[in-house]
Amino acid sequence: MSTINYSLSGMRDFNFLEVRKRNYIINIVTKLFELYGFSPLETPSMEKRNVLLGKYGDEGDKLIYQLLKSGDFLSKIKDLETKDYKEVSNLISDKALRYDLTIPFARYVVQNSQDITFPFKRYQIQKVWRADRPQKGRYREFTQCDVDVIGSSSLWSECDLINIFSDFFKNLGLTDITLKINNRKILEGIFDLLDIKSDFTTFCISLDKIEKSGKEYFYNFLDQQNCSKNQSELVTQLFELNLSNLEKLEYIESNFNNEKVKNGVVDLLFILDKIKSYQMDIKVDFSLARGIDYYTGSIFEVICNNNSIGSLGGGGRYDGLTKIFGKDLGSGVGISFGLERICVLLDELNLFPESVNKSLDVLFVNLGKKEANVSQEFVTILRKNGISSELYPDSVKLKKQMSYSNKKNIKYTAIIGEDELNSGKINLRNMKTGDQDLLGINELIQKIKNG
Amino acid sequence: MSTINYSLSGMRDFNFLEVRKRNYIINIVTKLFELYGFSPLETPSMEKRNVLLGKYGDEGDKLIYQLLKSGDFLSKIKDLETKDYKEVSNLISDKALRYDLTIPFARYVVQNSQDITFPFKRYQIQKVWRADRPQKGRYREFTQCDVDVIGSSSLWSECDLINIFSDFFKNLGLTDITLKINNRKILEGIFDLLDIKSDFTTFCISLDKIEKSGKEYFYNFLDQQNCSKNQSELVTQLFELNLSNLEKLEYIESNFNNEKVKNGVVDLLFILDKIKSYQMDIKVDFSLARGIDYYTGSIFEVICNNNSIGSLGGGGRYDGLTKIFGKDLGSGVGISFGLERICVLLDELNLFPESVNKSLDVLFVNLGKKEANVSQEFVTILRKNGISSELYPDSVKLKKQMSYSNKKNIKYTAIIGEDELNSGKINLRNMKTGDQDLLGINELIQKIKNG
Repeated sequence: MSTINYSLSGMRDFNFLEVRKRNYIINIVTKLFELYGFSPLETPSMEKRNVLLGKYGDEGDKLIYQLLKSGDFLSKIKDLETKDYKEVSNLISDKALRYDLTIPFARYVVQNSQDITFPFKRYQIQKVWRADRPQKGRYREFTQCDVDVIGSSSLWSECDLINIFSDFFKNLGLTDITLKINNRKILEGIFDLLDIKSDFTTFCISLDKIEKSGKEYFYNFLDQQNCSKNQSELVTQLFELNLSNLEKLEYIESNFNNEKVKNGVVDLLFILDKIKSYQMDIKVDFSLARGIDYYTGSIFEVICNNNSIGSLGGGGRYDGLTKIFGKDLGSGVGISFGLERICVLLDELNLFPESVNKSLDVLFVNLGKKEANVSQEFVTILRKNGISSELYPDSVKLKKQMSYSNKKNIKYTAIIGEDELNSGKINLRNMKTGDQDLLGINELIQKIKNG
Repeated sequence: MSTINYSLSGMRDFNFLEVRKRNYIINIVTKLFELYGFSPLETPSMEKRNVLLGKYGDEGDKLIYQLLKSGDFLSKIKDLETKDYKEVSNLISDKALRYDLTIPFARYVVQNSQDITFPFKRYQIQKVWRADRPQKGRYREFTQCDVDVIGSSSLWSECDLINIFSDFFKNLGLTDITLKINNRKILEGIFDLLDIKSDFTTFCISLDKIEKSGKEYFYNFLDQQNCSKNQSELVTQLFELNLSNLEKLEYIESNFNNEKVKNGVVDLLFILDKIKSYQMDIKVDFSLARGIDYYTGSIFEVICNNNSIGSLGGGGRYDGLTKIFGKDLGSGVGISFGLERICVLLDELNLFPESVNKSLDVLFVNLGKKEANVSQEFVTILRKNGISSELYPDSVKLKKQMSYSNKKNIKYTAIIGEDELNSGKINLRNMKTGDQDLLGINELIQKIKNG
């Protein structure tokens, strides 16, 4: 066998079982999106280079896959040797692969704003590419799944999105799910009250580190920012409140007297009131910040309790996302699903239904010309009845054909030999139990349809 | 509005209707593949550059999108100014985007041959990219849909693939479809009998031009190749035989005495015998060659009669495809579907079902806080019953909400006003007919479920 390695680091082939597992999840989430009134959108894999570059910070830019211009990309470049690689890439590349679904979505909405009916509710399930260092569970090509409402500031949208999360995990059979919820207005209010040097983004990034590094990490951050001990303690206490959601909101309102905090609390109260009936555990968590993202209101994150796999999804409300493309189309809110992680989790918990591993219903073995002719006629009848079926294409040793049937996890093997040619019946073997039956074609169809 | 053009030439956004139309076709073809015992495969969008380059001829190579290496791609390159763009691209790019699904499939099969059960039956529906000149119906990003059996030389596979074509077009409601069939062995036999200079590939390319340029084109080609007038006439006559399929096969066998021709005729006879019951018109066409493709046996092409859109699909049998990756895994046969053209054709012929344009079942208008609360409870109940539904998120003017409902082609609008709050009923308006009903929630569910 060839020993050349043809695989690209961080890229995956998906065999039939992996495709089916992924499609199982995608089908469930797609049906929910449609049920909730969202419609699909697909954008091209590539965007103009300048649509993507500069939108994800310096670190993000480094991870964007850029495409070489076609033809002689060097022909118009002068003094090549005096330029650094960034200048050169700007000259020899004019397209790049999608890094996420948000920027293409914003670009699409601005470009088509005159034809779109707002509030615009879209979902988008497509691949994205990042030239990141591959590691366990992190790939260079992966699928994102986003759903957004843009053009309305109504908190009813938040409620719908949370309900989608809840329905989704319920439909997958995933229990023990917690949705953490917070509001950027509350974080902004706290930030305003603190007399610290750092900017709001740094503040949010530090907050996000509490989960991994403990609340001491954040306390130290405040300390380094010359925050008073009193203030630091007051803020850090927010992350260890052993209170109900409503008590937490009362607590923060009375301890942080600020208009922004109040507005955030009002938002959270509305949402908690409307979704009170839901099974998924909802937990107000003032340490949730969602780092560098562009959120301005509600923020959410979903985790599986007692599992270290990390966030299974998240999202939040943003204002003015489309301004980067020259037009403000109003407030929006969206969530995304961590399909890759959800797939790993369902595998670990053995929650994929058996049907994902379902192969053919019936294989007809091939015992020679006459037998194959008759078998193929039965195959055709089965297919017309919606039963998946095939004739083994070659008349080789029965052992080889049975081995094919076993390896492919085929449920029934049908044998047409000389006896069956004469009787017009089919010898049907259940490959799991070993049971054999001699059946007419209609009996066979009934047997399979009855499971 | 911003006047910047963010669109990439040859690339398309698909709005909800376009996505649904494409998915309608993809669902039909996927179900058929499964019914016929094929399983899905997905490969990464990128391959190593040297997996793709050199596999599609010089013209193909030019159309392959190459990806710039990450980081400082210039750092290790010396004497940059002395190199031409092809040398440079080899140094600064190590990955490229998939050009078709065949080469990645061959690469996958060779890499995984020890885990694959042969004959291996896979289908693959993924995007491919070509830096081609965009024109009507030709895009730089488009979806290919391939289905192949590899590891068997049985002609039963050809029969299955032809039947898939037939079922597919029938399921779409496309009539007036012709499958042209030929065999490369016949063409090779004719080529061997002719005393001409050109190679077999050039011969095939010239044959393919008959459809566009007339049989004179091919006659002239033979003439330029110093083919005798007698021979040229004998061959060209093959393309105007007004005979049945079987008569055509008898004719060619008796006029072209050659082992390869005979073998090709035997193959065709087998296939024609097995698929005789089929609705799609099957036509033996000795001018069908399928140009530069790697076929060695049966070849097919599907067209819609009386429509100039061109080939809707095609394929054939190939030997030794996987040898390019160092391992011969046997004969294979496959077909592909021209999804983009089929989509255009269904649009032209108005054959998409109304359901692709289906939007929400029920929109609840938002007349204020109390009304919204009650409406959202109904929305939740409808969703639990599988009826897609939403509450308009903002309590804005009714006219605006009705306009939203109209523009989005929503079937029913539900109104909860003061009267309805008191009565517990829902005022349901059919947006097409204008009919209004006052219904309880269960009556409403029944009404919608009954259509």
